[in-house]
Amino acid sequence: MTANEAPVMTAMEGGVLRLTLNAPSARNSLSFAMIEALRTALRDADADRAVRVIVIAAAGHVFSAGHDLKEMDAARTAEDGGRGAFIRLFEACGQLMQEVVNHRCPVIAEVAGVATAAGCQLVASCDLAVAGRAARFATPGVRIGLFCSTPMVALTRNLSVKHAMEMLLTGDLIDAARAAEIGLVNRVVDDAALTAETMAFAAQIAGRSQLTVGIGKRAFYAQREMPLAEAYAYASTVMAENMMAADACEGIGAFIAKRDPVWRDQ
Amino acid sequence: MTANEAPVMTAMEGGVLRLTLNAPSARNSLSFAMIEALRTALRDADADRAVRVIVIAAAGHVFSAGHDLKEMDAARTAEDGGRGAFIRLFEACGQLMQEVVNHRCPVIAEVAGVATAAGCQLVASCDLAVAGRAARFATPGVRIGLFCSTPMVALTRNLSVKHAMEMLLTGDLIDAARAAEIGLVNRVVDDAALTAETMAFAAQIAGRSQLTVGIGKRAFYAQREMPLAEAYAYASTVMAENMMAADACEGIGAFIAKRDPVWRDQ
Amino acid sequence: MTANEAPVMTAMEGGVLRLTLNAPSARNSLSFAMIEALRTALRDADADRAVRVIVIAAAGHVFSAGHDLKEMDAARTAEDGGRGAFIRLFEACGQLMQEVVNHRCPVIAEVAGVATAAGCQLVASCDLAVAGRAARFATPGVRIGLFCSTPMVALTRNLSVKHAMEMLLTGDLIDAARAAEIGLVNRVVDDAALTAETMAFAAQIAGRSQLTVGIGKRAFYAQREMPLAEAYAYASTVMAENMMAADACEGIGAFIAKRDPVWRDQ
Repeated sequence: MTANEAPVMTAMEGGVLRLTLNAPSARNSLSFAMIEALRTALRDADADRAVRVIVIAAAGHVFSAGHDLKEMDAARTAEDGGRGAFIRLFEACGQLMQEVVNHRCPVIAEVAGVATAAGCQLVASCDLAVAGRAARFATPGVRIGLFCSTPMVALTRNLSVKHAMEMLLTGDLIDAARAAEIGLVNRVVDDAALTAETMAFAAQIAGRSQLTVGIGKRAFYAQREMPLAEAYAYASTVMAENMMAADACEGIGAFIAKRDPVWRDQ
Repeated sequence: MTANEAPVMTAMEGGVLRLTLNAPSARNSLSFAMIEALRTALRDADADRAVRVIVIAAAGHVFSAGHDLKEMDAARTAEDGGRGAFIRLFEACGQLMQEVVNHRCPVIAEVAGVATAAGCQLVASCDLAVAGRAARFATPGVRIGLFCSTPMVALTRNLSVKHAMEMLLTGDLIDAARAAEIGLVNRVVDDAALTAETMAFAAQIAGRSQLTVGIGKRAFYAQREMPLAEAYAYASTVMAENMMAADACEGIGAFIAKRDPVWRDQ
Repeated sequence: MTANEAPVMTAMEGGVLRLTLNAPSARNSLSFAMIEALRTALRDADADRAVRVIVIAAAGHVFSAGHDLKEMDAARTAEDGGRGAFIRLFEACGQLMQEVVNHRCPVIAEVAGVATAAGCQLVASCDLAVAGRAARFATPGVRIGLFCSTPMVALTRNLSVKHAMEMLLTGDLIDAARAAEIGLVNRVVDDAALTAETMAFAAQIAGRSQLTVGIGKRAFYAQREMPLAEAYAYASTVMAENMMAADACEGIGAFIAKRDPVWRDQ
């Protein structure tokens, strides 16, 4: 189930779908082709009920260096100076990031190397992130005259104001420990153990009721943008509906009976 | 002024009202009865001008294990499968949490043991929280097929996205030190000193002008949901009104004269 | 280019404008005169294209003690008890803070000593902040009967809920290390190195394309108040426009050619 030539390799392991960015010689840049391959993979995963959790990893020493600057620069020769291509690129990239946020499955970033610009944005957009000690993060657009304005959307929804501002205004790399301190990643682990630790994290979540996880993830992002009273009214409805599902009945019954639940994912 | 049989014990000490969850054999679960007892205690405290600060503590080794799963499961025998009861329960619980947020008095959680699900939500909903080193926190609903969607409302207004997501998707317990790191509690103290430290914290705030504290707490949550310009327009009005109050006149006069202020709470 | 008698001293150094609060005997309090002097300096800086980054520092051992309580108290003798003066003061102060946030240049606070009340708000309102180890921060209004309701607006947009609440309800001083931990400042440095480190930080940002930095800063605060989908639609447009600017063309070209960019700030 892998395709070594494709920009994104896919592999299933016990309900966990691994998507591996597979253009290491291009620093796994989020070219049009890479963005479309990721979006297709996410769409396929949405339709495949065997997929319970998604891990986004990368081949080679760079997680992702963000957009493909040569591809972008080449678009300047068009009649409109590239404007149309740039709008299409940033919109497609923004759609990808939102499809990660809105996906029914939790998405975990597994970051072994450098994640910069839209690569850093992809990490910030995932629900969870695990970094190896060698991982580094930056939003360096300011250094090349192109502020990381779309990465900023994801960054400012993860980090506090001054931490996000420092990354965006300096473009400096931060290490994995600092990324954990400021909330960009959940965990830092030994580089050698990164895949094993990330897959164990994913497997833990894959072992839950998929219906329940889907209800929770959707409600998480929805309620976050509401005023408090509205958020509570909404979440109360979500939780009452969740109680009516077979898996809540099974889970609570199993808990009371002190046995393991058997999920039907409905 | 204590009632050992009631679900919530009350005790007054120098302007600080201690509400102690008092169902240790039921792990201080937030049953309908417990929720109603807490709401009544908060309403009574609102009317009693002697109450300046509220501490919510718990009897026994568990702060609160969240909802009473047996009570919830029993409601499934109703004609509607329990839906009506579930809606009433989550709405009442959501009202309780909002009454903590909207109470004129600062509310401090004193957490000695395990606070899970709606118990963890109660800690997150308090204005301040002090934990003993043995305290533990989790939102474990995902393990029993019932995502902690209402606790999530309080959690996501305290923690950064990835920290909240990790607690909600894993259901794992975190210890007191981690809870302090991620902003769920303010302070971690020795277990033996927990009540003394919490009461000293409460007494410090109880020594302030009650009018001033009430103005500030209300404005805190109100301005938070506004865009920046609106928040400043609102807060400027609040502060000018505060300046016209007797206690601001007394406080500033005392400060200039280098003497202690005498509050009239008006 | 300094004016030793003015409430705000100005000095230019390589594109960095230093504004130094210069009323140390009045603890650099944000009197009407100081607020107006700062607003004028910011307005002048906006018009002067040589200014690329602004540092706000202070003469003496206090960064700023907030409003001038004696000036405020004196206004009580007016026919309206001071209400008109208070409204004018808080509105002018709120305008100052918003002018920092909305300024085209990044603004960095350089904090050597104590920053309290509106002084702490000024630090929180800056895009970035560097503190010396001796720096201290507080919102102590609650101690004098006047809750720090306008500082709260800036504080709650930087800190998590419980950290902000603790500062506001206790009025206690926190040290520089704690301020860094909770996100109020970016960096803590040796007191003797404070100005050098802050100026180096400023110089790094001053070396970027001013156009790019301006685009980024404006978009930062604008997108933060939007729902996710709206934020992405907006940021995509911003980034496509940024791509059409001469400096993005130059920066990306220089990056591809492995040479240093030469900014035209357009």
